[in-house]
Amino acid sequence: MCGVVGVYCENEDLTSTLTYYSLYSLQHRGQESSGIAMYSDGIKIHKGMGLVTEVLRDVVPKMKGKVAIGHVRYSTTGESKLENAQPILVRSKVGEIAICHNGNLVNYYQLREVLENEGRVFATTSDTEIIAQLLSNFLMKYDIYESLQILTGKLLGSYTITVLINDTLIAYRDPLGFRPLCIGEIDSGYVIASESCALDSLEIERVFDVKPGEAVIVEDGDVEFFRVAKAKRCARCVFEYIYFARPDSTIDGVSVYRARFNMGKNLARESSINCDIVSPIPDSGTTCAIGYAMESKIPYSEVLIKNRYVGRTFIMPEQKLREISVRLKMNVVRENVEGKRITLVDDSIVRGTTSRKIVEMVGRFAKEVHLRVGSPPIVSPCYFGIDMSTREELIASDKSVEEIRRILSVNSLAYLSLKGLIKAVGIKDLCLACLTGIYPVCVPGEICDNYKYDVRY
Amino acid sequence: MCGVVGVYCENEDLTSTLTYYSLYSLQHRGQESSGIAMYSDGIKIHKGMGLVTEVLRDVVPKMKGKVAIGHVRYSTTGESKLENAQPILVRSKVGEIAICHNGNLVNYYQLREVLENEGRVFATTSDTEIIAQLLSNFLMKYDIYESLQILTGKLLGSYTITVLINDTLIAYRDPLGFRPLCIGEIDSGYVIASESCALDSLEIERVFDVKPGEAVIVEDGDVEFFRVAKAKRCARCVFEYIYFARPDSTIDGVSVYRARFNMGKNLARESSINCDIVSPIPDSGTTCAIGYAMESKIPYSEVLIKNRYVGRTFIMPEQKLREISVRLKMNVVRENVEGKRITLVDDSIVRGTTSRKIVEMVGRFAKEVHLRVGSPPIVSPCYFGIDMSTREELIASDKSVEEIRRILSVNSLAYLSLKGLIKAVGIKDLCLACLTGIYPVCVPGEICDNYKYDVRY
Amino acid sequence: MCGVVGVYCENEDLTSTLTYYSLYSLQHRGQESSGIAMYSDGIKIHKGMGLVTEVLRDVVPKMKGKVAIGHVRYSTTGESKLENAQPILVRSKVGEIAICHNGNLVNYYQLREVLENEGRVFATTSDTEIIAQLLSNFLMKYDIYESLQILTGKLLGSYTITVLINDTLIAYRDPLGFRPLCIGEIDSGYVIASESCALDSLEIERVFDVKPGEAVIVEDGDVEFFRVAKAKRCARCVFEYIYFARPDSTIDGVSVYRARFNMGKNLARESSINCDIVSPIPDSGTTCAIGYAMESKIPYSEVLIKNRYVGRTFIMPEQKLREISVRLKMNVVRENVEGKRITLVDDSIVRGTTSRKIVEMVGRFAKEVHLRVGSPPIVSPCYFGIDMSTREELIASDKSVEEIRRILSVNSLAYLSLKGLIKAVGIKDLCLACLTGIYPVCVPGEICDNYKYDVRY
Amino acid sequence: MCGVVGVYCENEDLTSTLTYYSLYSLQHRGQESSGIAMYSDGIKIHKGMGLVTEVLRDVVPKMKGKVAIGHVRYSTTGESKLENAQPILVRSKVGEIAICHNGNLVNYYQLREVLENEGRVFATTSDTEIIAQLLSNFLMKYDIYESLQILTGKLLGSYTITVLINDTLIAYRDPLGFRPLCIGEIDSGYVIASESCALDSLEIERVFDVKPGEAVIVEDGDVEFFRVAKAKRCARCVFEYIYFARPDSTIDGVSVYRARFNMGKNLARESSINCDIVSPIPDSGTTCAIGYAMESKIPYSEVLIKNRYVGRTFIMPEQKLREISVRLKMNVVRENVEGKRITLVDDSIVRGTTSRKIVEMVGRFAKEVHLRVGSPPIVSPCYFGIDMSTREELIASDKSVEEIRRILSVNSLAYLSLKGLIKAVGIKDLCLACLTGIYPVCVPGEICDNYKYDVRY
Repeated sequence: MCGVVGVYCENEDLTSTLTYYSLYSLQHRGQESSGIAMYSDGIKIHKGMGLVTEVLRDVVPKMKGKVAIGHVRYSTTGESKLENAQPILVRSKVGEIAICHNGNLVNYYQLREVLENEGRVFATTSDTEIIAQLLSNFLMKYDIYESLQILTGKLLGSYTITVLINDTLIAYRDPLGFRPLCIGEIDSGYVIASESCALDSLEIERVFDVKPGEAVIVEDGDVEFFRVAKAKRCARCVFEYIYFARPDSTIDGVSVYRARFNMGKNLARESSINCDIVSPIPDSGTTCAIGYAMESKIPYSEVLIKNRYVGRTFIMPEQKLREISVRLKMNVVRENVEGKRITLVDDSIVRGTTSRKIVEMVGRFAKEVHLRVGSPPIVSPCYFGIDMSTREELIASDKSVEEIRRILSVNSLAYLSLKGLIKAVGIKDLCLACLTGIYPVCVPGEICDNYKYDVRY
Repeated sequence: MCGVVGVYCENEDLTSTLTYYSLYSLQHRGQESSGIAMYSDGIKIHKGMGLVTEVLRDVVPKMKGKVAIGHVRYSTTGESKLENAQPILVRSKVGEIAICHNGNLVNYYQLREVLENEGRVFATTSDTEIIAQLLSNFLMKYDIYESLQILTGKLLGSYTITVLINDTLIAYRDPLGFRPLCIGEIDSGYVIASESCALDSLEIERVFDVKPGEAVIVEDGDVEFFRVAKAKRCARCVFEYIYFARPDSTIDGVSVYRARFNMGKNLARESSINCDIVSPIPDSGTTCAIGYAMESKIPYSEVLIKNRYVGRTFIMPEQKLREISVRLKMNVVRENVEGKRITLVDDSIVRGTTSRKIVEMVGRFAKEVHLRVGSPPIVSPCYFGIDMSTREELIASDKSVEEIRRILSVNSLAYLSLKGLIKAVGIKDLCLACLTGIYPVCVPGEICDNYKYDVRY
Repeated sequence: MCGVVGVYCENEDLTSTLTYYSLYSLQHRGQESSGIAMYSDGIKIHKGMGLVTEVLRDVVPKMKGKVAIGHVRYSTTGESKLENAQPILVRSKVGEIAICHNGNLVNYYQLREVLENEGRVFATTSDTEIIAQLLSNFLMKYDIYESLQILTGKLLGSYTITVLINDTLIAYRDPLGFRPLCIGEIDSGYVIASESCALDSLEIERVFDVKPGEAVIVEDGDVEFFRVAKAKRCARCVFEYIYFARPDSTIDGVSVYRARFNMGKNLARESSINCDIVSPIPDSGTTCAIGYAMESKIPYSEVLIKNRYVGRTFIMPEQKLREISVRLKMNVVRENVEGKRITLVDDSIVRGTTSRKIVEMVGRFAKEVHLRVGSPPIVSPCYFGIDMSTREELIASDKSVEEIRRILSVNSLAYLSLKGLIKAVGIKDLCLACLTGIYPVCVPGEICDNYKYDVRY
Repeated sequence: MCGVVGVYCENEDLTSTLTYYSLYSLQHRGQESSGIAMYSDGIKIHKGMGLVTEVLRDVVPKMKGKVAIGHVRYSTTGESKLENAQPILVRSKVGEIAICHNGNLVNYYQLREVLENEGRVFATTSDTEIIAQLLSNFLMKYDIYESLQILTGKLLGSYTITVLINDTLIAYRDPLGFRPLCIGEIDSGYVIASESCALDSLEIERVFDVKPGEAVIVEDGDVEFFRVAKAKRCARCVFEYIYFARPDSTIDGVSVYRARFNMGKNLARESSINCDIVSPIPDSGTTCAIGYAMESKIPYSEVLIKNRYVGRTFIMPEQKLREISVRLKMNVVRENVEGKRITLVDDSIVRGTTSRKIVEMVGRFAKEVHLRVGSPPIVSPCYFGIDMSTREELIASDKSVEEIRRILSVNSLAYLSLKGLIKAVGIKDLCLACLTGIYPVCVPGEICDNYKYDVRY
């Protein structure tokens, strides 16, 4: 759960601004830390804990140069502290290397141990530093093309990266293509970002997906697309479509909005129930609920209103107040609920704790509450960068739909089928591990189907 | 455009927290400054520029006492600086008086001149200080009841106030009732707030409107409702229903959500046009658009997606980038637009500048763009607390609907009729001055119909 | 204990900088809050808790205008909070009035009560606001000259003030002249400040004392010196010479350095004792010790070294560490102490608590410790602006020199005689109330000799 | 120019506080950045740009553990930014290693190149990271004793370090002993610090110097002193005695105060001139001036007064004001100067720019100004940690005393002889490279006499 950006722009005054606003549009991918690295007579880095506007607003207008990379972070591996904020910079024989990484390495500990046995040291606990150290090592003996291929042979897991090797910009998407990456051309250069919404915000019209296994290399203003490796099959994260990406983005040719809308439609086809009102659990369930309402022909309405000004709260003194935290984020429109049969639609259920509180809030006034979920039950953890790390946390990992219905105390509960989901997204090369428990790369202790995803160079 | 709160709670540890979270839920009413005043061996005030969480988070847990008032502010009268942040505190013969004010005095300059001629001085340029000085003066000679009546006789305009007179809490809504105010009972006291959503967030179930002309006085834990004055007719701000209040609030018995939904329905009845998609201009047009879509039976969809993480930006270096500021806030879901006939629905149009940019963004891809507005044209400025202060700024003040249509370059444009609006809200005692140009109190240079709203004591 | 500044400068870019650096050189007179008010199309104020560099550094370069006043504060009357920080601004019939005040009004409560009875209100608990309100009132009926005279008739106590009445700059020193004030001419205007060291730092060569009872009025670039009132006798604070002023300042023609040096000389003449080393208690005792050493012909040396980087500390967890706070500020040069007879010289003893800890630190290693004090015992509180407010706090208020000697556990203790002090300073019109208990103005409960100081207009 | 600290304390609540206050007393050794590393289930680091009180005040009370190291920094090698702040932490096969370093490696670039050629990467540009990487490497194959010896064989230059290897505390002073280090025993552990004044402030009575080439190893509460290496001769930095250390410290058995006092005495013996007043250039010249005055029997007086509240200033708008920066720091007591013959005493002259301005300030009023300097001319740069890095900056590197006299425009100028200085300090094993140009270790392009300082293991 991170966002990455890479920019090459001949106009030295514009580069940092383009990077800043790209990150600004990717803020939903990570709110913990923000950072930017720019080359201009050496690589300069500014990063800190907090939002893009908080961390970078004052420094960006002063940064001048032609190439930059940027990052927003929500931690998965590595503790939540400044030293793990990105970009990560290492200095080596081949110069300075700065890296921004979206993804998660499955073989982090093994790679680190090998490097440690060589006597190497690490400044962070982040898997991104491993990538930086390996890359710098390969570059001592090989050119960029070979180095990326050797690197790909070593890394197991998901890694969409933007890299500065001194003043050379590289953007690379791993061969399974877990995380998205796209590129757009501007008058005097290129902007590369995790999602197309970032390029839209800059009014860049022609936007392409970077293909899985493909690297974009920008050197002295010349761009080159290099196919580092090719997997037999890709493993595009289905959860980007379900929840994580912004609905106005298009990933690998598929509109996220359309996918969610279709999830709602298919859900209605599979398990609609007669009701007075269909309402989303905001904000994530909205598009799905619109699709569901249209297909089921049940009136769409808003039953829950979000407080748009949510900030950090503090520990509350009394037991009773401790319970109100969901109420501060969301409130019921009683008018729309009282005495009515309500179908609530959400995109997914991970832990189920928030869902339970919301349902309770609505259930107090409603005649019936039905819950419909735009994706199948999440039964297995993600090792590729989405924050659902242990089986224990997942309500569906060891409970039947009926058991979950009882815990959430709704009148009925239905999930979208896996088939319905795949049809909604409309492409096949998806990573569905969290829904099926079958993983596209070897993860110790899990069932892997990795031969299907074999990578060739 | 402000929010006020007043709390009496026997549990001294809880009072500041209740005030804090009430303000937190009223943050949409003002984001410029936040403040709290608590009595505990004298009145202590904490206030500052910024959001509730930024300004008050660290001090609130340390504040102990039984009575408090709070404020969030969006400036109308008075410059935007710390000295005008509220609560405003004056020390006088009768002790300490702290005031939070939502509204705007029409006769501010006259009142100030009278006081100045008596040799008085002012620490701020805010009309709230005038109320505080007058009140403290009346209290030297009269009791609270008489003082409130004399005060009402002097003030012209809108004023919903919460007041601490030493440890006595007063909440008062002016006799015309421009701005909302409601009260709820808790185990050990009372919470008073501008909108009911604040009380909902604290799980207070029984909530009542404070009536126009009514004062709530809490002294030593005893509450008293005192009818200070009664107007022949009230002038409840219609713009609270149209735009300003949160949709999950109920004001004077009317659900804001319902009012907006009905605005959309009536709008469709009056001027629906055949289209492929109905979509709101987010966030304010959403409820209205849902009503419009339902009535017109045109599919509801989201064509514009808001960036949920909007913070302060900086001056951008290039002409081209300067244009993108709306793009950073909102992006088009191209999939939903391309080649389609779109009806965009907004709650109102004030200046028209943002509308123009949004329509342009959508129009680039759409076949047709039609704009429907959930309220009549705004033709006259508000003198009672809504930020639309000069006629020049209002696009409809001197332009016909057709002229506006051309400026916005939409295929068709229609506003809701005044009748349709009044029917949607469903109550009669509304201030419609911004839509009609006829004002309920005397405003120099404007047409006033004030005899209708005569106030008796 | 405050410092005041007033500047008129034709060069609009320079005024705020001159004010800033004058305050910077007066920082020793108050470290609690700092502030500046400048006229430029209305009076703008910037003030805050903290040092001049912390509070004003960022805003001063942006301030443009011809007149400004400034203040550094160490609170005496009025609680220590932002609302009492100066300059204090009031808006009234006659316009805007900003005031900076060094001193303390003895009749604050009486004046406030009179004003309160007229129905007036106060934004602060500071006596400075009283001066501002009175002045604004008098100005409604009288010109500046008469107003200052009437004001002088009302105020009892010490008040050196700099004032902006819109764009007119006034600096006024009360007729008894408790606190210092001086003025220097620059190319394009005037700088007025509490002490001459501030003018020295700006390389202003020709510097004059503003006389007690004299006002400097700068209007449209024309300066006028106006004798508001004349006291039969003045009451210049002797403690400015003893401790408070910077040694490089000259007050009323007397070099503070010379006064302190003479205090040391006279002290040695009166009560020198044979010893190996004379050493100051730094920093305040240094000049006095140099004079003592010279006169007594005992070698001068430093026995105590101050840590030059003293900042805010925190509550320490263990009893033992709590004792070390003096050690963190000051350390003994053991080499200079071991086995030696030491005479420590300080300028004065107020509470005696720090002296006790320092003497103990030295006494641990020294053969003998003798303490010599450059002023007589402080027996009575100051009501005119020096922070020694209650008799109970003053170690000499109810103890003999022998008793104090035993408490401090020194081998011998001697104070300078009153005669010796007066001779050292070399002028006669001094306020000696803290040393004699006889006050130059009426203070309830104290012996007053006010007829001697009769003021004529 | 840095300060280091190491603490072992059985009382887990006390360790961070002891580290904090030790750093607080060493603040004169570096004001750019401050940091602390503590072991407690892994090493946690807090560091930042700024003073100890600014950076560490809020976090120290919350840190619990038995071992910690701390650092204050004034940059010499490595740019001035956060990534170079210390302690520096590396994670390796042998665990976590945190290092604080006072000194400077002469062979930094060579060492770094060797490591880079092995494919290693660096997170900082600081020589401290080199030490950390080398140490972690040696510890993979050797025990702590051997590792320290091998490390010593690799490093060229000055390095007094405190180290955490997981929960083991090591303090080590290089065999030539350039920088000071001392240790004191407390009830439940040990405190190690750059200077004895830090231990004095904690009321630790028994304090010992750590000998050149000696390491202190504290493991599980047991302390061990291990002689890593022994040089034929030591090279204790003479500039610590002249200027850098606090006068209340004792280094290698020599009181810094006594050394400076003797410098002044010897200076008077060598070159005293008849005058009215002897005065220091504060603060660094004070002790030297006292010795000079005593020996020469000329009255000691203060001619220059420092502003005790010096903070960051800003760019001044006018040419004239730009000149006043020295005036803001220091002012002349005109009384003491006018018409007099003054001897100013300073401890040393590095660039001469400040001296020139001060002399000019005094010379304006004085009859004659003579300058006496407590050390010989500084002719060569320091490569061992004192901030005088290029020959071009040193006024005496290519000018005769007479030439310097003319530049400073004083009536006479004299430096202390090298013999006089050595006699004043009273020990022989000094590094005098900055005064003689002969270096105790090989520095490319400089004359080295390194055989004299041969190191054995």
